[in-house]
Amino acid sequence: MPFRESGYHPYDFANRRHIGPSPSEMAEMLRAVGEPSLDALIAETVPASIRQREPLDWGKPLSEQGVLRRLREVAGKNRVLTSLIGQGYHGTVTPPVIQRNILENPAWYTAYTPYQPEISQGRLEALLNFQTMVCDLTGLDVANASLLDEATAAAEAMALCERGAKSKARAFFVDHHCHPQTIAVIRTRAEPLGWEVIVGDPFADLDPEAVFGAIFQYPGTYGDCHDFGGPIAALHDAKALACVAADPLALTLLRPPGEMGADIAIGSTQRFGVPLGFGGPHAAYMAVTDALKRMMPGRIVGVSIDARGNRAYRLALQTREQHIRREKATSNICTAQALLAVMASMYAVFHGPDGLRAIAQRVHRKTVRLVKGLESLGFRVDQASFFDTVTVEVGPLRDVALRAAVAEGINLRAVGRTKIGIACDERTRPEHAEAIWRAFGGEMRDWSLLHEYRLPENLIRTSPYLTHPIFHLNRAEAEMTRYMRRLADRDLALDRAMIPLGSCTMKLNATAEMMPLSWPEFADIHPFAPADQTRGYAEMIADLSAKLAAITGYDAISTQPNSGAQGEYAGLLTIRAFHRARGEAHRDICLIPTSAHGTNPASAQMAGMKVVVVASAPNGDIDLADFRAKAEKHADSLACCMITYPSTHGVFEETVREVCEITHALGGQVYLDGANLNALVGLARPGDIGSDVSHLNLHKTFCVPHGGGGPGMGPIGVKAHLAPYLPGEKDGAGAVSACAFGSPSLLTISWAYCLMMGGAGLTQATKVAILNANYIAARLSDAYPILYSRAGRVAHECIVDTRPLRDSAGVSVDDVAKRLIDCGFHAPTMSWPVAGTLMIEPTESEPKAELDRFVAAMLGIRAEARAIEEGAMDRADNPLLRAPHTVEDLVGDWDRPYSREQACFPPGAFRVDKYWPPVNRVDNVYGDRNLVCSCPPVESYAEGEG
Amino acid sequence: MPFRESGYHPYDFANRRHIGPSPSEMAEMLRAVGEPSLDALIAETVPASIRQREPLDWGKPLSEQGVLRRLREVAGKNRVLTSLIGQGYHGTVTPPVIQRNILENPAWYTAYTPYQPEISQGRLEALLNFQTMVCDLTGLDVANASLLDEATAAAEAMALCERGAKSKARAFFVDHHCHPQTIAVIRTRAEPLGWEVIVGDPFADLDPEAVFGAIFQYPGTYGDCHDFGGPIAALHDAKALACVAADPLALTLLRPPGEMGADIAIGSTQRFGVPLGFGGPHAAYMAVTDALKRMMPGRIVGVSIDARGNRAYRLALQTREQHIRREKATSNICTAQALLAVMASMYAVFHGPDGLRAIAQRVHRKTVRLVKGLESLGFRVDQASFFDTVTVEVGPLRDVALRAAVAEGINLRAVGRTKIGIACDERTRPEHAEAIWRAFGGEMRDWSLLHEYRLPENLIRTSPYLTHPIFHLNRAEAEMTRYMRRLADRDLALDRAMIPLGSCTMKLNATAEMMPLSWPEFADIHPFAPADQTRGYAEMIADLSAKLAAITGYDAISTQPNSGAQGEYAGLLTIRAFHRARGEAHRDICLIPTSAHGTNPASAQMAGMKVVVVASAPNGDIDLADFRAKAEKHADSLACCMITYPSTHGVFEETVREVCEITHALGGQVYLDGANLNALVGLARPGDIGSDVSHLNLHKTFCVPHGGGGPGMGPIGVKAHLAPYLPGEKDGAGAVSACAFGSPSLLTISWAYCLMMGGAGLTQATKVAILNANYIAARLSDAYPILYSRAGRVAHECIVDTRPLRDSAGVSVDDVAKRLIDCGFHAPTMSWPVAGTLMIEPTESEPKAELDRFVAAMLGIRAEARAIEEGAMDRADNPLLRAPHTVEDLVGDWDRPYSREQACFPPGAFRVDKYWPPVNRVDNVYGDRNLVCSCPPVESYAEGEG
Repeated sequence: MPFRESGYHPYDFANRRHIGPSPSEMAEMLRAVGEPSLDALIAETVPASIRQREPLDWGKPLSEQGVLRRLREVAGKNRVLTSLIGQGYHGTVTPPVIQRNILENPAWYTAYTPYQPEISQGRLEALLNFQTMVCDLTGLDVANASLLDEATAAAEAMALCERGAKSKARAFFVDHHCHPQTIAVIRTRAEPLGWEVIVGDPFADLDPEAVFGAIFQYPGTYGDCHDFGGPIAALHDAKALACVAADPLALTLLRPPGEMGADIAIGSTQRFGVPLGFGGPHAAYMAVTDALKRMMPGRIVGVSIDARGNRAYRLALQTREQHIRREKATSNICTAQALLAVMASMYAVFHGPDGLRAIAQRVHRKTVRLVKGLESLGFRVDQASFFDTVTVEVGPLRDVALRAAVAEGINLRAVGRTKIGIACDERTRPEHAEAIWRAFGGEMRDWSLLHEYRLPENLIRTSPYLTHPIFHLNRAEAEMTRYMRRLADRDLALDRAMIPLGSCTMKLNATAEMMPLSWPEFADIHPFAPADQTRGYAEMIADLSAKLAAITGYDAISTQPNSGAQGEYAGLLTIRAFHRARGEAHRDICLIPTSAHGTNPASAQMAGMKVVVVASAPNGDIDLADFRAKAEKHADSLACCMITYPSTHGVFEETVREVCEITHALGGQVYLDGANLNALVGLARPGDIGSDVSHLNLHKTFCVPHGGGGPGMGPIGVKAHLAPYLPGEKDGAGAVSACAFGSPSLLTISWAYCLMMGGAGLTQATKVAILNANYIAARLSDAYPILYSRAGRVAHECIVDTRPLRDSAGVSVDDVAKRLIDCGFHAPTMSWPVAGTLMIEPTESEPKAELDRFVAAMLGIRAEARAIEEGAMDRADNPLLRAPHTVEDLVGDWDRPYSREQACFPPGAFRVDKYWPPVNRVDNVYGDRNLVCSCPPVESYAEGEG
Repeated sequence: MPFRESGYHPYDFANRRHIGPSPSEMAEMLRAVGEPSLDALIAETVPASIRQREPLDWGKPLSEQGVLRRLREVAGKNRVLTSLIGQGYHGTVTPPVIQRNILENPAWYTAYTPYQPEISQGRLEALLNFQTMVCDLTGLDVANASLLDEATAAAEAMALCERGAKSKARAFFVDHHCHPQTIAVIRTRAEPLGWEVIVGDPFADLDPEAVFGAIFQYPGTYGDCHDFGGPIAALHDAKALACVAADPLALTLLRPPGEMGADIAIGSTQRFGVPLGFGGPHAAYMAVTDALKRMMPGRIVGVSIDARGNRAYRLALQTREQHIRREKATSNICTAQALLAVMASMYAVFHGPDGLRAIAQRVHRKTVRLVKGLESLGFRVDQASFFDTVTVEVGPLRDVALRAAVAEGINLRAVGRTKIGIACDERTRPEHAEAIWRAFGGEMRDWSLLHEYRLPENLIRTSPYLTHPIFHLNRAEAEMTRYMRRLADRDLALDRAMIPLGSCTMKLNATAEMMPLSWPEFADIHPFAPADQTRGYAEMIADLSAKLAAITGYDAISTQPNSGAQGEYAGLLTIRAFHRARGEAHRDICLIPTSAHGTNPASAQMAGMKVVVVASAPNGDIDLADFRAKAEKHADSLACCMITYPSTHGVFEETVREVCEITHALGGQVYLDGANLNALVGLARPGDIGSDVSHLNLHKTFCVPHGGGGPGMGPIGVKAHLAPYLPGEKDGAGAVSACAFGSPSLLTISWAYCLMMGGAGLTQATKVAILNANYIAARLSDAYPILYSRAGRVAHECIVDTRPLRDSAGVSVDDVAKRLIDCGFHAPTMSWPVAGTLMIEPTESEPKAELDRFVAAMLGIRAEARAIEEGAMDRADNPLLRAPHTVEDLVGDWDRPYSREQACFPPGAFRVDKYWPPVNRVDNVYGDRNLVCSCPPVESYAEGEG
């Protein structure tokens, strides 16, 4: 051997990409924690009783290049045809400038939900643009910042009708021309709540007195465009509410729902530049009249002011919904599709109203041209007028024609038994029409776009939209690029600093995992493409599901739920279906500890269950005596319990097996919330501990980026006895989201992660996540009480108590959080699960230096509080109370009892690379009192610049 | 017609992406300029006598999607095989985190050369890392910040030997194991300078007394590794200098050139994560001993201090070389390969010394395994020891075996008549070895990487490298991402603001144009792949060349020169070859106006010409009388003249035709510098005006991004009579760069641009470029003298005179430039072509709002100067003198006679989105006096950060 062999494997993904501390750093950290080895720490932390026996193993981990090759191979098994199927999903052009600078830019995709508005002004502005766009297009007053998909948005609209209508009816009317997946999700949602769903023709079958609301599709799923003014007026007379599901592109040409009198509009913004992705993720929208705004589910961005009185954006009305109605909620909406909503809003900013109108006109004219060709071949379309979708009667040879189209590279829609549906889109080109004509038996090449329209004359839009200056930016690419960069720079995301949010698991979203998303073989697949075109997706989903089953100890996985809360709901529906199949439909009690995630009771309520709350012991564990008492009290009607493990207090409770045994003994099922799975992977499996069903947050443990507030994914795993009752199964709970596989394109990310890490890598990640949390706890424990530790150990997160500072120095947890911004950090989770505390989850991705920077920041804050306690700092005017500090503070007069230097460069803050928040502390009360949820007026945009 | 038809075409690329001002903005701007229409302005500006008659036209422009489809189609005609050809180009893995965050990130690729150090600290740090890496790996003292390619670096090394050696010999020795393309470029370079090139075996043929220097390849092109210590010592004894061309990956295992006594090392850093791209762009390196550092060509980053005494990076020794030796230069190096050097340096930062060593060890062990397989099949390799490359004697069936390898998906190298060369790399996998074994007639699957080495035992490296902490960053991807983001944020590039650099044409680099670069069908092609695998490239290059010919009015194009200065040099060599072919080898006089680009005389000198300088008239035009006089004086030996059109003063000179006629009448040729082609495209053609040859800066007019100081591309166009003498032609000038097509992957950008714009779009861009410049001139003309305008009109740039401020207010052009940083702008070109002035070129990409912001900044600066003139501001302490202002200024004590607000928010500056330079004004003199060109010591890195 002529020289030293390097022990270092340059492509060892697990040790190079995802695991932050280097081996030598880990050794130092273990010393600080007081453990001889990582395994010793884990042995101290994770109860032996729950440790899994066999290591996770599915063969050698792949290198980055290896996994990209594997994904290419699978991608090659998808066939990218041109899908003119429609049914809510349309071809679209993602402007390259948006693809590169939003979808592929970590500054956007690694951001968290904008709960800390001071570091989120960029994405809040983009989402406000989205809301303004939706309001304008729908003709309604207030829009939210997106929902999961059109079908769940429709279900939310139904629930909103029920909440908002004065009618006491218990039925909901659904236009038979709604998309089939929308009808399916509405049925699923209505059933546990005891609402009847009536599907029919709005102009023939609607009895307004019999319903609390109705939904109509516009244009209909087959392309027909109706004026719903009549049915809506009739509904209003009967004190019922009306929703219209509308295509936003059609609304650039057609009279908007608001002008028909609709109370609610919902729909998908997918065709505003968001790739098909085999069904998702895409951003759905919801807009409502002013009267309904405080009942609207989902997140709403509002305009407020900061401490200097300058304009600032924030999430409005955060105290609504599941927060205040936990046990009575009819929505468990927690996340949104922020990244996709941002893309859609940028598409509108980029094209502007004239651009969108031009796109819609061209789509329509292409449809007309296609139809005229079909007519010249002797076919007739069913629609006298239409926007972009028609159906054609073709007779018994229908499937032959469909296959002929496929042979030409075009997917069309089978409608009924003898019809074919065709939906044109932005990407439709002459050769597509020629191919369809050939499939229909004709050879034609005449593609002159005549100025002929077949839009419904009674529904032509005359009202303006997107009149706000933001949609009239000069649209040169230079300007768009700079606008997106300016917004990105206002925010603090993972590409600049760790985001130690307890329970949110803000870990690395590795670049290699993100790349396949942009490949056409994944991006350009329609959700209803024939199965033989989606074999790559099928193979990937099957393999990922097998790995998730191996990780969790479950027997079956459903990837359908497209958020964590959706996963809870789907899991509970599965339990419900199980009980009903066994003739135990009366089992409807769900035991939930007080410390549970807020979505737990809301999901239970939606699944038709009654929530019984179980107390917590002083140490944060479930109060086992209370649990047993409540369980036994409701023994006959016990449906299930919902627990979180490790607990929401970040502790591995020793009693978890007992809780499961009690529940099972009484005939109940155990739902284990997977939010904290990042502390379990490779060490313990929910399915082994006694749980029957869990959801997995792919956007936490499995590297799907948070996207500034979505997309999320919440697949569920179940034991074998529940498998027949999963969503989509024959005896199952029914569809819970629009797409059978949730947001399938995201699964590439989690799959790549699993393949690159291997079982051993994933296990190591879990151990290091626990090490990182214990290191922070150890470093902070002299300065702050660490709550709920067990024998000095925490799991993958730790709760730091800041309440002593409130009493001693008048410093609130909010002050600490805002001061962390000055230090260049996103605050940890605030006041949850315990008010006045910070829950810190560093994740395994963070290297020691970043943990140390955070510790320095927290110790610096404690030192400032001590200075207040000791009178060295002013109790009423100090950097904690006035945080965060902005450049405006520095530039202006300074009459504070602390220095500018102290204000801006507390420990932890970078000097050269300091992050400057664009606003001072945001006034939440002002914003909710003066609710403004669309772009502020013109003059405010010129403010302060050039 | 039910409603208004939109006149707006959503995919009209020309009017949406590249052309900044909207139609209504243009109307306003024309009013400000005082013209009724754009065409009227052009008629006023561009002399009718030179206007082209036929409009540019090559059919309908393509949409973004259309051009991406077209590029996909052409990409499909390239076949991506695994190339184990070597010869200076190797497969490599671009880490995805570097690909996305550097190569595909406009913050990096749209930056300009870091001449303004205060806004360039990020890329300067990355380039300093590059230099440190090169010094460490080569074992030499000082490295530059990259050169164009290995072959031109070798030619530069030869010239440096000639300059630096005390030997008076006129010959240069070249190792016969140098890469063939290196030998070819050396020959080209030596010939006009009268140097003899001796190619031979360093251990047999080298006569040290006969040469001023020598170059050896290490490992050799066929894989042999020799210790050149002996020949080097002999050269030194003879007062000659020695250069070693070395593979940087091999240097992680092998004794570096510096330890053999080499004075110079050069090579390519391509295999440090930079895609093959059919030959480029890649960053070559050069390192030298301390003794030679002030003679080294190219840019060198150095460490200095700023006005506060803090560390700051800058380009060092800028006054060397062509600046001081214009007419005597032996190098015309102007640009570098900054973006690629940044990528290579990040690759080293990412992998660190242990990672690089591990990669090299694996490459070597894979080579050993492959060789053992071949040996077991009965073959013998020629090399007893090797790193990654071997040659195998296979006999007369050689080409059969090569074809068999191609059939297996592998390209190998044909060597001599009966040998095959094989070079392994980072991407070599077992299946590649198996494929090669099959091609050599064997079926084997044994791929166990034995711990067997066949490195030369006398050449094992023992010295450490990359010891600086920057190469020991925690290399988790989170940390890498943040490091690259921090560096990017320190810089100001086109993604944040316009960069109005006269003569540099910093126009939009559209995203759609950048995307194909990353496709494997363009990225993963070896420059010496068989022609039937590169048909897509051939088609693209042919079509782009045809379009460039149409644009310029030339008859033939060579894309070989990979920078503008290389283009000049290649053009002059073509003229030289032309004269020689006609028996007029004595023609060696080149007339160059005083106002020419500095590279012009340097290139002429290198082409073996004598420069005769022609005076300028007071209005900036060529002094026609002097031109005629000089031309006639040298009539017999007149080779050519070099002119710039429009002139470097930004004016369309009326006399251009006359200059051409005089030159031609006396038997000379006309070289028209294409630097200002952005003012001509579609309006006038150099070939019609009378010019014989021009270079085109693709990185100016044709949207190749500047990349922070390279890559550039300088194809040349010539009239038919010169076509036989182009580089690469049989009678031509010889190779001027390593690759026949320069940096071919970049051509995708320019081609996409031409396809999307169409002839009309390109013409409109030119007109708007002229409008934008005239608008700025009109808006600024009350505040500053506008030099060299013709009848109040400028071409595509304008020269603003700041000298009056020097006299009246003590404000230098430097002060104005630095104050513009406070306003959020990169300064215009300073003091060129006229000292004390700013040359402003806004380009067509900038919308009116950005022009107005710049005008506001310039007027604000004039107002500040006026305040000084009027005594309202302190002459010795004012915001102009102290610009740029940093956060450090704000935070510290403030005892200045102007306010913080005045300091930081001058007109033009964004308020919320203000750009903060990371350093105060950089001290150039200090830096050159205390030359430090590698990373500063450890302790300085912790400085200031929590």
